[in-house]
Amino acid sequence: MAQQINLNADIAEGWGAYHVGNDAALVKIIRSANVACGFHAGDPTVMHRFVTLAKEAGCSVGAHPGFNDLWGFGRRRITMRASDLEYMIAYQIGALQAMAAYAGLKVTHLKPHGALNNMAAEDLEYALAIGRAIKAVDRNIVYVALPGTEMETAARKLELPLAREGFADRQYDDNGNLASRAIPGTVLKDPAKAVEQVLRMVREGEIVSRNGKTIKVEVETICVHGDEPTAVDVAGAVRGRLEQEGIQVVPLDKMKLAG
Amino acid sequence: MAQQINLNADIAEGWGAYHVGNDAALVKIIRSANVACGFHAGDPTVMHRFVTLAKEAGCSVGAHPGFNDLWGFGRRRITMRASDLEYMIAYQIGALQAMAAYAGLKVTHLKPHGALNNMAAEDLEYALAIGRAIKAVDRNIVYVALPGTEMETAARKLELPLAREGFADRQYDDNGNLASRAIPGTVLKDPAKAVEQVLRMVREGEIVSRNGKTIKVEVETICVHGDEPTAVDVAGAVRGRLEQEGIQVVPLDKMKLAG
Amino acid sequence: MAQQINLNADIAEGWGAYHVGNDAALVKIIRSANVACGFHAGDPTVMHRFVTLAKEAGCSVGAHPGFNDLWGFGRRRITMRASDLEYMIAYQIGALQAMAAYAGLKVTHLKPHGALNNMAAEDLEYALAIGRAIKAVDRNIVYVALPGTEMETAARKLELPLAREGFADRQYDDNGNLASRAIPGTVLKDPAKAVEQVLRMVREGEIVSRNGKTIKVEVETICVHGDEPTAVDVAGAVRGRLEQEGIQVVPLDKMKLAG
Amino acid sequence: MAQQINLNADIAEGWGAYHVGNDAALVKIIRSANVACGFHAGDPTVMHRFVTLAKEAGCSVGAHPGFNDLWGFGRRRITMRASDLEYMIAYQIGALQAMAAYAGLKVTHLKPHGALNNMAAEDLEYALAIGRAIKAVDRNIVYVALPGTEMETAARKLELPLAREGFADRQYDDNGNLASRAIPGTVLKDPAKAVEQVLRMVREGEIVSRNGKTIKVEVETICVHGDEPTAVDVAGAVRGRLEQEGIQVVPLDKMKLAG
Repeated sequence: MAQQINLNADIAEGWGAYHVGNDAALVKIIRSANVACGFHAGDPTVMHRFVTLAKEAGCSVGAHPGFNDLWGFGRRRITMRASDLEYMIAYQIGALQAMAAYAGLKVTHLKPHGALNNMAAEDLEYALAIGRAIKAVDRNIVYVALPGTEMETAARKLELPLAREGFADRQYDDNGNLASRAIPGTVLKDPAKAVEQVLRMVREGEIVSRNGKTIKVEVETICVHGDEPTAVDVAGAVRGRLEQEGIQVVPLDKMKLAG
Repeated sequence: MAQQINLNADIAEGWGAYHVGNDAALVKIIRSANVACGFHAGDPTVMHRFVTLAKEAGCSVGAHPGFNDLWGFGRRRITMRASDLEYMIAYQIGALQAMAAYAGLKVTHLKPHGALNNMAAEDLEYALAIGRAIKAVDRNIVYVALPGTEMETAARKLELPLAREGFADRQYDDNGNLASRAIPGTVLKDPAKAVEQVLRMVREGEIVSRNGKTIKVEVETICVHGDEPTAVDVAGAVRGRLEQEGIQVVPLDKMKLAG
Repeated sequence: MAQQINLNADIAEGWGAYHVGNDAALVKIIRSANVACGFHAGDPTVMHRFVTLAKEAGCSVGAHPGFNDLWGFGRRRITMRASDLEYMIAYQIGALQAMAAYAGLKVTHLKPHGALNNMAAEDLEYALAIGRAIKAVDRNIVYVALPGTEMETAARKLELPLAREGFADRQYDDNGNLASRAIPGTVLKDPAKAVEQVLRMVREGEIVSRNGKTIKVEVETICVHGDEPTAVDVAGAVRGRLEQEGIQVVPLDKMKLAG
Repeated sequence: MAQQINLNADIAEGWGAYHVGNDAALVKIIRSANVACGFHAGDPTVMHRFVTLAKEAGCSVGAHPGFNDLWGFGRRRITMRASDLEYMIAYQIGALQAMAAYAGLKVTHLKPHGALNNMAAEDLEYALAIGRAIKAVDRNIVYVALPGTEMETAARKLELPLAREGFADRQYDDNGNLASRAIPGTVLKDPAKAVEQVLRMVREGEIVSRNGKTIKVEVETICVHGDEPTAVDVAGAVRGRLEQEGIQVVPLDKMKLAG
């Protein structure tokens, strides 16, 4: 099926004296990075350091905006006016654009973080607020969305470039949602299993749920996680195998996308 | 002397449920607004609201970045690494650029806030850090600087457009610094006195200090304050008289500036 | 019915350079103040200033904890682990206890702020988390609760002193909830109307809803709001009339309460 | 000389999703822990988790207040009004007292963090502000101070219990200040060297500077650092040897202290 795919990961999630993740290793494997913008994680210095790494690695940078909730790492749902949310997103995009300018990069895409991603998947108002922020700041920014959710609806409605996202290292439920991390085995730590899941998604447009059900899905980007000790190995195996199979792994701004 | 001058004011300093200042009145008088960027004051919603007002009024918007110190309203000196400061400034510029995009505006200038302005006046490292942030994000942004300070030095060194700033409604000490607000009478609340001070500054290139000493000064922009009850009257009187005297009052991006 | 009643108000909601409300006037009328603790509003200096006023006025001080959301003024619902919420409340109580110590005062009660109050009314987990924080820090602190809600349930379950709260200056819906501020007329700005509502609540144990329905209610404390321009007049009229009618208006720690 | 000494360490410096340090190992070695109070590090959940560990280990808990500067980890100097500083410290003490109540513990001592410690050492106004906060909240709290500094002066002036502090794992300059971490070798990673320095301090009342100069010093508490990989080994060796030499290693509230 697809001859091209993107690999993305959440990145630059340190803060001040706190360091996390494997940014330096991961940036060489993925092709698009979702950069924390200072609200749930990330600070201007961390952002600056990362865009330099991204430039060197040929990795495109995208905004990974979150709720203004450092204590909760953006994983808590916050109910706010859609307009407040929209401007909060625009603010974070702009902040990242300024940091990206240091490396001569543009912000290529946006993927909401944590609870914001979950809420936008379910709530069209939130999904549209995010899309409107993109549209106001730079309408070429790709809206990375969970397929079949209100985020996809919002991106299409606002005629924004859209990249639907699958996951390399997480099992799915029968309804196409990610299975809860709380269930043992749902995080795929074995590179072979992740590779298998990704290849099937990319070539067949299918996911096999953890109960064995086959789900149809179309994705333009695959997310790998950076926070497991096995993450870099898994991501590396996925990229290696995709390229071996003749599938190009490209930055989001190099793909042909709907919207 | 000058046939053109700019009027600027600090603006959009509300935050969440907190409202301050006379933004709606002031924006019609001044021609360039220094917009708080969310660190010492301002939030994305306040910023958004203001850029819309600015667009309508034909007022140019500039960044008014401050220390990350809401409690202290940016009036406390913070000693940080120059590079951290630089990226913090760039972040704030970018955030405002995104908000300005809503109104189809560009960020025309930058004036540091409060303690940051004071420190940058004295400390070349700080003044350069601010200038480098401008240069990285958009080198057409005008550096608004206190004349004769390290800020002016930094702007010239980095070959940035420079606008030197005088004050309409504050008395000066003999050394050319602003006299302390703590001294009675140093805040000019009488429009006539402010008008007189501004005219002399603009036409003669002179300030008369509160002790009667004449000081040579060249300025391209005049700051009016928004936080006194008399502020709007004072600002209005200044603008009215300048125009009556045939001096154009223009936005900073419409002026010919060194740099 | 009741020979005693308490009057409370939310207070000390300034922050840094931002001043709001009529603290100095209100503190002389109410007998128990709900003090913002720095998370949604209030800062250590504002808190310190207020406890001194409270001491002079013979007004008891209580914690008015809120979500860690200054931008949203604590009016946004945040979904967090109950244990995180509990410790966040305990933290705020302790902070206020320390400030109260400056005036030789104890923290007499706790009333959750804004969205936290709304969530605790509906969600027993939240209501219990708040109660557990009280119990851990000082089990003599009175839990101020909306009558008939999960907050009342939680206070009884944890055997905490309980004060049920009515409102002087807001109309009620038929179900006993406050009518939305968005509906014109639901904020009682006429002192006579507020007095009438309070007297009926205190003496008859009844509220008449905005549709004319009579609702049974038992309350030990009446909330007056400080944020309307008419607030001080309304509060003053309520207190004056209560005393005229021979009903004592006392601090919460001077009342006999269940629990 | 001394038959008793205290061992302290800075602890509970995580924040939200960010974990740092070796709290669980260190708490068993030290006898007094300096707990971050949420301003430069630490959050209510982290604080709660730690006080439980401290209770189990028989380790006393003290406040480790810092500037309101999470991004800078409290390592940036902030110039603020002494009264604002005082109330900010009191607030943090109170917050920790509430958390300590969960474990049935009292706050036994206070040691300022980072830049605040450095400023208080040099500036009597800051040192007094910290002392006044202690005095207002609980005058039995021990003021942990660098010997010979304004902190010692302030503690004596305010008649607060005083514990002067030496360092196990850091070299000293000839003037009795800690040598800069930037100089190679100034952090003692060899347990034997740290043990030697501590024994000499405790028994002889002497430090040998990194240039070989002997400096007289009296200390009641020894700080070990938790942030080096070697920290737990160093701390363990120090405690082991002290006890082997018949010197009791006790919590601060079990010592006889001046003040």
